[in-house]
Amino acid sequence: MSEVAQTLEGWFALHDFRSVDWTAWRLAAPDERAEARQELTALHAEWMESEQAGAGSTALYSIVGQKADIMILHLRETLEELNVLETALNRSAFARFLRPAYSYVSVVELSNYMTQPGADPMDNPEIVKRLKPILPKARHVCFYPMNKRREGNDNWYMLGMDERRAMMRSHGMIGRQYAGKVKQIITGSVGFDNWEWGVTLFAEDPIQFKKLVYEMRFDEVSARYGDFGDFYVGNLLPAEDAFRALEL
Amino acid sequence: MSEVAQTLEGWFALHDFRSVDWTAWRLAAPDERAEARQELTALHAEWMESEQAGAGSTALYSIVGQKADIMILHLRETLEELNVLETALNRSAFARFLRPAYSYVSVVELSNYMTQPGADPMDNPEIVKRLKPILPKARHVCFYPMNKRREGNDNWYMLGMDERRAMMRSHGMIGRQYAGKVKQIITGSVGFDNWEWGVTLFAEDPIQFKKLVYEMRFDEVSARYGDFGDFYVGNLLPAEDAFRALEL
Amino acid sequence: MSEVAQTLEGWFALHDFRSVDWTAWRLAAPDERAEARQELTALHAEWMESEQAGAGSTALYSIVGQKADIMILHLRETLEELNVLETALNRSAFARFLRPAYSYVSVVELSNYMTQPGADPMDNPEIVKRLKPILPKARHVCFYPMNKRREGNDNWYMLGMDERRAMMRSHGMIGRQYAGKVKQIITGSVGFDNWEWGVTLFAEDPIQFKKLVYEMRFDEVSARYGDFGDFYVGNLLPAEDAFRALEL
Amino acid sequence: MSEVAQTLEGWFALHDFRSVDWTAWRLAAPDERAEARQELTALHAEWMESEQAGAGSTALYSIVGQKADIMILHLRETLEELNVLETALNRSAFARFLRPAYSYVSVVELSNYMTQPGADPMDNPEIVKRLKPILPKARHVCFYPMNKRREGNDNWYMLGMDERRAMMRSHGMIGRQYAGKVKQIITGSVGFDNWEWGVTLFAEDPIQFKKLVYEMRFDEVSARYGDFGDFYVGNLLPAEDAFRALEL
Amino acid sequence: MSEVAQTLEGWFALHDFRSVDWTAWRLAAPDERAEARQELTALHAEWMESEQAGAGSTALYSIVGQKADIMILHLRETLEELNVLETALNRSAFARFLRPAYSYVSVVELSNYMTQPGADPMDNPEIVKRLKPILPKARHVCFYPMNKRREGNDNWYMLGMDERRAMMRSHGMIGRQYAGKVKQIITGSVGFDNWEWGVTLFAEDPIQFKKLVYEMRFDEVSARYGDFGDFYVGNLLPAEDAFRALEL
Repeated sequence: MSEVAQTLEGWFALHDFRSVDWTAWRLAAPDERAEARQELTALHAEWMESEQAGAGSTALYSIVGQKADIMILHLRETLEELNVLETALNRSAFARFLRPAYSYVSVVELSNYMTQPGADPMDNPEIVKRLKPILPKARHVCFYPMNKRREGNDNWYMLGMDERRAMMRSHGMIGRQYAGKVKQIITGSVGFDNWEWGVTLFAEDPIQFKKLVYEMRFDEVSARYGDFGDFYVGNLLPAEDAFRALEL
Repeated sequence: MSEVAQTLEGWFALHDFRSVDWTAWRLAAPDERAEARQELTALHAEWMESEQAGAGSTALYSIVGQKADIMILHLRETLEELNVLETALNRSAFARFLRPAYSYVSVVELSNYMTQPGADPMDNPEIVKRLKPILPKARHVCFYPMNKRREGNDNWYMLGMDERRAMMRSHGMIGRQYAGKVKQIITGSVGFDNWEWGVTLFAEDPIQFKKLVYEMRFDEVSARYGDFGDFYVGNLLPAEDAFRALEL
Repeated sequence: MSEVAQTLEGWFALHDFRSVDWTAWRLAAPDERAEARQELTALHAEWMESEQAGAGSTALYSIVGQKADIMILHLRETLEELNVLETALNRSAFARFLRPAYSYVSVVELSNYMTQPGADPMDNPEIVKRLKPILPKARHVCFYPMNKRREGNDNWYMLGMDERRAMMRSHGMIGRQYAGKVKQIITGSVGFDNWEWGVTLFAEDPIQFKKLVYEMRFDEVSARYGDFGDFYVGNLLPAEDAFRALEL
Repeated sequence: MSEVAQTLEGWFALHDFRSVDWTAWRLAAPDERAEARQELTALHAEWMESEQAGAGSTALYSIVGQKADIMILHLRETLEELNVLETALNRSAFARFLRPAYSYVSVVELSNYMTQPGADPMDNPEIVKRLKPILPKARHVCFYPMNKRREGNDNWYMLGMDERRAMMRSHGMIGRQYAGKVKQIITGSVGFDNWEWGVTLFAEDPIQFKKLVYEMRFDEVSARYGDFGDFYVGNLLPAEDAFRALEL
Repeated sequence: MSEVAQTLEGWFALHDFRSVDWTAWRLAAPDERAEARQELTALHAEWMESEQAGAGSTALYSIVGQKADIMILHLRETLEELNVLETALNRSAFARFLRPAYSYVSVVELSNYMTQPGADPMDNPEIVKRLKPILPKARHVCFYPMNKRREGNDNWYMLGMDERRAMMRSHGMIGRQYAGKVKQIITGSVGFDNWEWGVTLFAEDPIQFKKLVYEMRFDEVSARYGDFGDFYVGNLLPAEDAFRALEL
């Protein structure tokens, strides 16, 4: 067996994508809409309270195209908390105007491909901060899940640790060129959801998502070993005014 | 033809995943909700009676994310009993608030890769207990179906018995390192459902699912020969209070 | 071009899988249910008449899990008759409580891999009986469609006749070991449906489905050349009392 | 780049598969049914007028199994005409009882693999007739879309023209053995729909579909280079009495 | 890592495919239809104003077959503008008669495989015009998404820059032969949607789509390295009279 890359886990993550049922919204009575607005506003206030209390973080984005209308991304200490958040939305008056679109369950992860053997990464406050991050309020988000490929001669999990580490280092170098332009959060989902990792990118300029992902695709670790799921791209929904942004 | 790995079969298993129709629940009259609660409570009581009578076992988990809201896992002596349980739920007043999400039909299985030739495993009460297990009430569950791959040079079923046994032994060694942290039930589904095996894991700490499945993925038997279906992760629904946990 | 394996065709087959709309059933008025029961009973009587008249055969099974609730398997002389049976069910009062789940169109087939060249198999009454069989009333059924693989070095249709015949003979030997335990009907669907063959197994003990399919999977003809679709497993619905068995 | 096989194009084709909403039909008032019948009859009359005027051809088949209930196959001079026909059906009173099932957009095509270089095939009235054919009123139809494979060593588009021509010739020889039993119309869909070709077969005896497609599968051009989509098989719906045949 | 092909980005693109709910339209009251017509007309006027103001471009096509009924293609400066356009349609009275069918998010792209190193392409007004194009009002449109393949020996992203450039040049030569017959807009979607590129073709004669795409398929860059998604083909919906063309 190849040596296993050790990982550090932080907050659990739920990427919760929903579509709006526009016809139901259109046909709803004014007081039904008011109740929906009120309950979502209350939920939002709770999310922000948790963030301010350091108990997690939540971001809200609209998604471009038909794959979904909104993405709510929650980070919390436990799977139970994520389940409670999900159910609270489902039980709210706003849920009547939502349809499930896609979801992703994972946990914020740092791999030790980059760290020096021997050092205990949890002694590093910078690492702890990366494991329990406050989500950036960047104008744009990009999300996609991915696997490391296991096909014929392109089998990541049959490679030796040194080979994997060298490739991950080269990969990380590309990412570093985008420092200040793209912020990246990696979440691990082995045992939790259908892909091995989720990648969530944040940027002011969405063209940087394209530049970064495209450049990485020429890197051997992606070119030979990367399999990618659906890509979602979106725009920040300002917390205080999500309804106006959605024109709801 | 390669020598066939002998298997022992125990109780049949139905993994029954359902989504809640939250809008229907919201719009339901109080007496409709009461009737639904009452009928689910009655079904639950029957399930627990069967478990106490040694006629099977049932576990109830909420699922995180949109793939499903609840998983009901039944173990019973016969396929007919599973069908009766499934139909009883479908006919109940609670079913009006459920939507099908996913199901899996299989049978608890032990393979003899690990046993010594000659020994009759059914003489071993420990083995009988593993074939007809009482499901643990652990805080978290993880379920996924899997196949052994048959592609080009990575064809499990063309390997010799010795090669397969050696790989399964190495695989089992990893599992043993998680003893006390993760409990695993393997169910076989060849001839019953779309994948060859279902893996159901139970743990107090869900990070252990990730550690275990990730470590195994570097093992040749998974790296080269494992194909995996959807992963579901969930939280225990306390029997006595499932409705409160679901906030129904 | 490789020599083509000759086939004999018998009755056409429609595997008609349906799901019950349990909520619609629950909400139906007593006279609507009575009408549905009456019309299904009448259809069933017609199916049994055809069987007694030697004009075909019909079997009715409940399916375990969410893939379907019932399977109606019809064998008839012509595709037109199958279409009439399908439409008669669709037009019945019972159809209001059914949803389409899956269907498979094929024809009972015997391949001559096993027969001696020169002999005319239609002279053999045993073979004629196998081409136009009365379906067994076994307690359990298993259905799955399959293809012979055409991928890279594993291309069944590029093999020579002798190689294919030798592999099919070995395959048949496994089947023969299950004589008395599992009865198998092979239907060909090339040109009729999305897979090349449908396999329908009947047994009193469903574990025999698992043993048979698993053992065959180690045989080269399955290990290297078999691709399989969805597996359905079910329990006999007694003709006279299908409604009670379904608890409808 | 390999030499490109030249093609001749004739009428555009729309294979329009629909499912009947039997419950809506059952619940419809007599005058709603009468209106639906009347409007479909009027559309049918228009289709037959076009055929008699040499402006196209239309065939109507019922489909066996749940993939669809009817197939309407239209051939016309332009894509705009096909769109008008499709929309006219969608706008009719009958459309309320139909659900979309599948469609295929293509154009009648002859490839010149078989023709002699130099000859102008459009001088040949036989070829013109094949490019703008009156659809046969055979008892049975079979439709499936297909691609030429481009995978590893089995890449049709990397072969030389001579190799491709030799294989297509062998393929055509098989087809010719079925002359008088099966009539075949090839339509090209590169740039129009998800597969490269549609194959529509007509026969009095549906077993001939199976014999033909199965025999061809052993031919290298199919065995190594053919990828196939869904197969549909159906029975002629007599123009004058489609409603009775469907029991509508 | 292979040298990365540099790209230039222009306007963002939303390909918005919708199906019409013909039954809802049929059952709608005259004033509901009038309101829907009026609101779509108003939206259309806004789209044309933007185009005249040089702030983007919009094209409207009907789609042949069941994959969709209409395609609205918007080009705009920002993702936010596309989101606003999408939401405005969703909120309109017309949206009640639409169903989502498919969408594609990308950005108009020129790759520098063809440009000379050193030259700054943004100095070239021709290139700027291609990055922010006014969509042609051609009679027909063809859209399909695509990837460059990364499979075994056919891995585009592992090739050297020179090899890729030579193949892209040969590919471009084919395209140039269709100058005057087919106009092509390439949009890049890496990081935005599920495929790497979208190809939108415009032509007066739709047979030219087939000729072009088929000829390119024999070119190594497509034959070995092209993977294609769904193909959509359609007819221009005249701006001033889209409702009549759709017979709405």
